[in-house]
Amino acid sequence: MSGIWGKNIKFSIFGESHGKGIGIVIDGIKPGLKLDEEYIKFEMSRRAPGKNSFSTPRNEADSFQILSGIFNEYTTGAPLCAFIENTNQHSKDYGKLKDLMRPSHADYPGFIKYEGFNDYRGGGHFSGRLTAALVFAGAVCKQILSKDNIKIGSHILSIGNVKDSYFDKVNVQFETLDLLNKSEFPVLDENISEMMKSEILKAKEDLDSIGGIVETAVINLNAGLGSPFFDSVESNLAHILFSVPAVKGVEFGEGFDISKMRGSEANDEYYIEDGKVKTYTNNNGGILGGITNGMPIILRTAFKPTPSISQNQRTIDISRMEDAELEVKGRHDPCIVLRAVPVVEAVTAMAIVDLLYEK
Amino acid sequence: MSGIWGKNIKFSIFGESHGKGIGIVIDGIKPGLKLDEEYIKFEMSRRAPGKNSFSTPRNEADSFQILSGIFNEYTTGAPLCAFIENTNQHSKDYGKLKDLMRPSHADYPGFIKYEGFNDYRGGGHFSGRLTAALVFAGAVCKQILSKDNIKIGSHILSIGNVKDSYFDKVNVQFETLDLLNKSEFPVLDENISEMMKSEILKAKEDLDSIGGIVETAVINLNAGLGSPFFDSVESNLAHILFSVPAVKGVEFGEGFDISKMRGSEANDEYYIEDGKVKTYTNNNGGILGGITNGMPIILRTAFKPTPSISQNQRTIDISRMEDAELEVKGRHDPCIVLRAVPVVEAVTAMAIVDLLYEK
Amino acid sequence: MSGIWGKNIKFSIFGESHGKGIGIVIDGIKPGLKLDEEYIKFEMSRRAPGKNSFSTPRNEADSFQILSGIFNEYTTGAPLCAFIENTNQHSKDYGKLKDLMRPSHADYPGFIKYEGFNDYRGGGHFSGRLTAALVFAGAVCKQILSKDNIKIGSHILSIGNVKDSYFDKVNVQFETLDLLNKSEFPVLDENISEMMKSEILKAKEDLDSIGGIVETAVINLNAGLGSPFFDSVESNLAHILFSVPAVKGVEFGEGFDISKMRGSEANDEYYIEDGKVKTYTNNNGGILGGITNGMPIILRTAFKPTPSISQNQRTIDISRMEDAELEVKGRHDPCIVLRAVPVVEAVTAMAIVDLLYEK
Amino acid sequence: MSGIWGKNIKFSIFGESHGKGIGIVIDGIKPGLKLDEEYIKFEMSRRAPGKNSFSTPRNEADSFQILSGIFNEYTTGAPLCAFIENTNQHSKDYGKLKDLMRPSHADYPGFIKYEGFNDYRGGGHFSGRLTAALVFAGAVCKQILSKDNIKIGSHILSIGNVKDSYFDKVNVQFETLDLLNKSEFPVLDENISEMMKSEILKAKEDLDSIGGIVETAVINLNAGLGSPFFDSVESNLAHILFSVPAVKGVEFGEGFDISKMRGSEANDEYYIEDGKVKTYTNNNGGILGGITNGMPIILRTAFKPTPSISQNQRTIDISRMEDAELEVKGRHDPCIVLRAVPVVEAVTAMAIVDLLYEK
Repeated sequence: MSGIWGKNIKFSIFGESHGKGIGIVIDGIKPGLKLDEEYIKFEMSRRAPGKNSFSTPRNEADSFQILSGIFNEYTTGAPLCAFIENTNQHSKDYGKLKDLMRPSHADYPGFIKYEGFNDYRGGGHFSGRLTAALVFAGAVCKQILSKDNIKIGSHILSIGNVKDSYFDKVNVQFETLDLLNKSEFPVLDENISEMMKSEILKAKEDLDSIGGIVETAVINLNAGLGSPFFDSVESNLAHILFSVPAVKGVEFGEGFDISKMRGSEANDEYYIEDGKVKTYTNNNGGILGGITNGMPIILRTAFKPTPSISQNQRTIDISRMEDAELEVKGRHDPCIVLRAVPVVEAVTAMAIVDLLYEK
Repeated sequence: MSGIWGKNIKFSIFGESHGKGIGIVIDGIKPGLKLDEEYIKFEMSRRAPGKNSFSTPRNEADSFQILSGIFNEYTTGAPLCAFIENTNQHSKDYGKLKDLMRPSHADYPGFIKYEGFNDYRGGGHFSGRLTAALVFAGAVCKQILSKDNIKIGSHILSIGNVKDSYFDKVNVQFETLDLLNKSEFPVLDENISEMMKSEILKAKEDLDSIGGIVETAVINLNAGLGSPFFDSVESNLAHILFSVPAVKGVEFGEGFDISKMRGSEANDEYYIEDGKVKTYTNNNGGILGGITNGMPIILRTAFKPTPSISQNQRTIDISRMEDAELEVKGRHDPCIVLRAVPVVEAVTAMAIVDLLYEK
Repeated sequence: MSGIWGKNIKFSIFGESHGKGIGIVIDGIKPGLKLDEEYIKFEMSRRAPGKNSFSTPRNEADSFQILSGIFNEYTTGAPLCAFIENTNQHSKDYGKLKDLMRPSHADYPGFIKYEGFNDYRGGGHFSGRLTAALVFAGAVCKQILSKDNIKIGSHILSIGNVKDSYFDKVNVQFETLDLLNKSEFPVLDENISEMMKSEILKAKEDLDSIGGIVETAVINLNAGLGSPFFDSVESNLAHILFSVPAVKGVEFGEGFDISKMRGSEANDEYYIEDGKVKTYTNNNGGILGGITNGMPIILRTAFKPTPSISQNQRTIDISRMEDAELEVKGRHDPCIVLRAVPVVEAVTAMAIVDLLYEK
Repeated sequence: MSGIWGKNIKFSIFGESHGKGIGIVIDGIKPGLKLDEEYIKFEMSRRAPGKNSFSTPRNEADSFQILSGIFNEYTTGAPLCAFIENTNQHSKDYGKLKDLMRPSHADYPGFIKYEGFNDYRGGGHFSGRLTAALVFAGAVCKQILSKDNIKIGSHILSIGNVKDSYFDKVNVQFETLDLLNKSEFPVLDENISEMMKSEILKAKEDLDSIGGIVETAVINLNAGLGSPFFDSVESNLAHILFSVPAVKGVEFGEGFDISKMRGSEANDEYYIEDGKVKTYTNNNGGILGGITNGMPIILRTAFKPTPSISQNQRTIDISRMEDAELEVKGRHDPCIVLRAVPVVEAVTAMAIVDLLYEK
C-alpha cells in the first residue's frame, strides 16, 4: 500500500497502462489558486510520447479532465482529482507476454507481490505511463511555487557517456531554468545536443536502449525548509525521485564526488551580501542538516536504460517455471531520459510544495 | 515535525547532544522477540567514538536503558523506549559558538527554522550523536531479521580517493558480511585498509577531514517486498539513509554508472536454479519496479567530510549579521565514515523490517 | 487536508455535489478479491435518494464506473478508483444561496475555512452525496469481510421519539442481520415501522425534518483486533462515523447508560463454551481495552435532523455581513436516517477491514 | 501499532504500569514556548491517585522529568520527551492474576493480541496509569492554547444517576471554566457534589464501583478549524477520547438527544453581533460540517464503572482454558470519573492544538 505520498499535501495515484486510464487525487491544496490549464497541457506535452524520433512511438494525447476540486477556475481547497483516459492501447499484444517475465521490468516481482493478479498489460500499475499523472500534479505544484518566484529547471546532464556541462551551483539563473523548461532538448551546452541525439539513435539502430542523468536546480527557496530527523529535504526529494520508474541513483550538491573531498574544500563558507546570507560555494546543494540554507538546491537523478529492447533475451516462463527466451517486436523508446526531465521536475515540485505547506 | 519514521513499525527519535540524553521509541514491534542486550551493546560499540586514532576523541559510553516494552526479556508488543544518557559533554565550550554559524553544519538553517530557540550546543538535535539511537533501533531490527536469516553487511568502499573492491553483487556471501560486521575496519581488500587509515591520518594532521563511501548488501530477502507507486524499496531506503547526517548521495545496484549502459548490458536476465528464480547479473541491485526480486540488495551511501575542522574558516555572526571568522580548537573526528558503517546498516535494517512487517 | 482515511488500507475521497461527480480511491486492497458488482449496485441502491416518500426527491442513479485496480474481475492489489458521475443536479438553483448561510449546514464554517472559494452548490464537498462513495467502498469491504463470515447489520433504533427494540447484544444472529440488510425499512420490531414512517411524514407535512438513531452490530470477529493506545477499535470506528455528515453521537455497548451502572453489573464475566471464550453479558459491546474480545460489536450512531427544511429561518448574508432571512423552497428529505443505515454499515466495514489488515 | 497520535503534532506514548515508568514524546511542538513546569505539576496532581477517599489508594508522586526538547526553559522545536518513573508498584501482587482474566479489563484481548507476551502486571501498557503521560502532554498543549485565550474546562455531569446541571452551551464563561479547572470536585451545581460523593462512597462500601459522565467546553476557538471529509473536529476529538480507558460514549452539542428533535428546533440560526457571527442556540456544539463555527465546543464523555471491584467474579483461567473465580483483594478506586476530568481536558487540548497547527 503506497499509492499515497506527502505529509502536508497528499498525492494519491491510481491507474494502469492498459486499463481505463490513470489519475491522481491531490488532497490539501490550498483554496484560491487560479489553475492555468494551458500550462498543465504544455507540461504534459513535454512528457508525452511520440513527439520525435528519440522517443516512444505510442502516440497518446494525454488529455486530462479535472473531476473535482475546481470551481470557477479556482481551487476550492477540496481534493482535486484529475483523470487521463487511455485511448491508444493495444491490449491484445500483451497476452503472449503474460508468462514471460521481461528482464529488469517489474513483471516478476509484481507477479510475486500480487500473487498473479496484477494487470500485466504494458506493466499495468508499474508502467511509466503513470508518470503522466505526476506531471499533472507537478504542473499544479509549479503554479503554487511560481507565486513565490520559486523556479525548478533541469537539463540532460548525460546520455550514456556523452556529458553536458554542470549547473553553476552558486549562480543558477532564473532565465536559464526558464529556457530549459521550454527547450525541446534541454542541455546547457548547445553543442552537446547533437551528440546526445546521435547516441540515442545509435542505441535505437541496435534495437537497444541507453541511460542517462538529469540535473535539476531549484532556486529562490527560503532557508529553513525541511526537518530533522527523518524529513530532511534530501529524504523527501529522494523518496519521491526513487518512486519514478528507472531511477537508480540520487545525489545532492557535489553528491558522490564530495566523498573525495577534504572538509576544508567541501565546506561552504558564509558571507553576507545585501543583508542576505550566502555561501561562496554550494557543494552541499543548498541543504545543510536536511534543511534549506537559501542557496539553490542542486540534485542529480540517474536513469537506467529502459529495459524494453527488441533484442533476444534470456528469461523465464513463470507458469511453467522454466527457462525461456523473449523477443519483443515493435519499436521501443530507446531513451527515456528526455521524457524523464519533466517527471523529475514534477516530483521535485510536489516535494517542495509539501515542505512549504509545513510552514 | 519529522522525528517519526516508518509505516508498519514506527521509530520516534528524541534528544540533543548536550541535553539529558537521546532516545528512541519503537512502536509496532511484534511481541515475543527475545532481546539480546549484549548484541545491542556490541553494535553500539561499533559506532561509539574514542576507540582509536581515526575517530572523535569524545569518549562516551553510550550505555542505554530500556524504559518500556520489554517484560521477562521478551518484547511485549507495546512501544519499546530506549534512553542513552549524556555523560561526557562540556556545554560551556559551546557558548562562544552561539552566534558563529559553523560552515556546512546545520547551525544556520537550524537557527532560521527554529527562530533561534534551538539548542546550539554541539549541534543539539542535529548532532551526529543521535545516530546512537538509530544504532540501538537497528540492533533490535537486525535481531528481527536474523530470524529469517536476513543479513546486512557493509564495507568502506572509499576514503577520499582510496578505493576498496566492490561487492560481488550476484554472490555476496553470508560469511563475508558476518566478518565485515565484526571487523574493526571493514574492507573487502585487506591491503587497502592501511592506505585508508593513512588517508585519514593525513587529513587529521592537516587539521582537516575527509569523506568516503559505504557499500552495503542485504541478502536472503524474498522477492515481493516494497510497493508501487511511492513506497519503492529504493524510496524507503533512500529516505532514511538521507536522514543520516552528512549523506549526500545514495545509489542502488550499478547506480549512477548504470546511466552509461545500454539496456542489453544493464538488463538482468533471468534463469531458474534449483527451483529458484535468479538473475545472471544484478545491475539493479535486487530491486525492480521498486520491489525486491530476491537477489541481494546492493546500495552505496556517500558521506561528505565532517564539517568540523580545526582550520580557520570564513563565516557570519548571525546576531550581528556581519562577516566573521571561526576557528574551532580541539581535536575533531577527521573521518566519520568508519563510525557511519553501523549507522548505515542500522537504518537499512529499520527500513527492511518496515517492509517485512507490511506482509 | 483530510480526504484520506485509514492506516492499513487507505480511502481517498473526492468530489462535489454539483461538480462532475464524486469518487474514491481505495489503496491497499489485497489482490485476488473477485468483485461482485451487482452487490455493490444493491448496496448503493439502499442509499440512493428518491426511492419512496420518506426520502429526498433528487433522483440520481448513482451508477459507478471502476477506473482502476480491477483486472479480469479481480482486484489486482493496485489502487482501485471508482467514480460516480453527477447527472441530475440543477446548479442554477443554488446561485441565490451563495451568500445566505443555511443554518446548521457547513456553509458558514466552509466559507471561512476555504476563504470563499468553496463550491457552495448543494454543499459542494460537504454534501451528503459524498456518502455514495463511502457506500461503494463499504460494499467492497463487506465482500472482503464476508470471506471470514464477518457480518455487519443495522436497524433504525429510533426516529424522533419512536423507538425500536435493541439488539440482543450477546446473541445477535447472522440471519437477523442478513434480513435487515435486505429490508426496505430495517427495524427489529415489525410493528414499529409504521409509527416511524408516520413520524417522518408528519415532519414532512410540517416542512420540517426529524432525527434518529441507528444501531449496528458486527459479528464473527476474532478477539485481538485493535491496538492500544490510540487505535482502539472504538477510536477508529468513532473517527470515521463522526466523518459522516449529521452524526452527533457515537456509543458502544451500553454506551452512555453504562455510566449509571455499578461495576458488578457492568462487568462482562467470562465463561468457556465449546472451547471458545465468551461473556455472559456484553455491556462493553465486544471491545475491552480498545481491542475486540470476540463478542459482537454493538454501536449506536445519533443523527441530527437534516438541516434542510422549507420553513423560514433567520440567518446572515455573509458578503454584506448582516442579518437576513432564508426560505429554501422545494422538497427536502425529511429524514436521512433510513438512507444513513447503509452509510453507517459502509464506514463500519471500512474500519473493520483496516483493523483486519493490521494482522 | 498505534502508540502515536496526531497529524500536525504527534504524540508518541510508551510505558507500563509496573515497568520502569511511562512517557510521551511530543513531536512538532513549535519553538519558543516558555514551559511553566509548575502548571504541569498542578495538572498532574489533578489526576494523581490517593488524594482523597474517592480515589485509588495507590499513592504515586507522578513527578516527571523532561528528557529533551527544552533549552533555557523554552521549547526548541525538537521532540520533547517527558518520563514519569514508576516508584510505588508492587509487582509481586500481580503474579497470581497472570492467568485469571479480570472481567471487563483488557487482560483477555491483550493476551490474545500479544500472544501472551504482554506485561500483565496492573494492566501493563493498558493501565489507566498511562493517562498521566496524556495529562503531561495536555498541560503543554493548554499552555499553547492559552496564548490564544482558548480555554478548556469540564465538570462531572453525572455519577451513576446523580446529575449536575448542563453547561449553558451558548454562553459558557471563561471564569466558570477557570473555577472548574481549580476545583477539587468540579461541578456546576454546588449542591450536587455531596450527593455525588455519597454515591461514590456507597459503591466503595459495597466493594463496587460506579460510572459517570464528564461534560467539557472549549471556548474562544475561531471558526474554520477541522477538515472534511475524514478529519472533522468531532472525528479527531472522538478518536482520542475513545483512546482513554473506560470511555464508552462521546457526543457533541445536544448529542444523542438531537436525534429526537425536529430540524426547526435543532437548527442553530445565525445572527451578527458586534461584527461577529453567532448562533442563537448551540445544539451542534460549535461544530458544523465537521468544522468549528466559532461557538463553544460542547462535548460529553461517558465512563464505565472501573472494572476493578473487590467482589467475587466469574472468569476463566486462560492457561488451563477453564472456568474460574476471581476475587481481587485490596482497595480499588470506586470511581475514576473525578480523576478522568483532567484526562478528558488533556486529550481535548491535544486534539485542538493538532487542529490549530494545521493552519
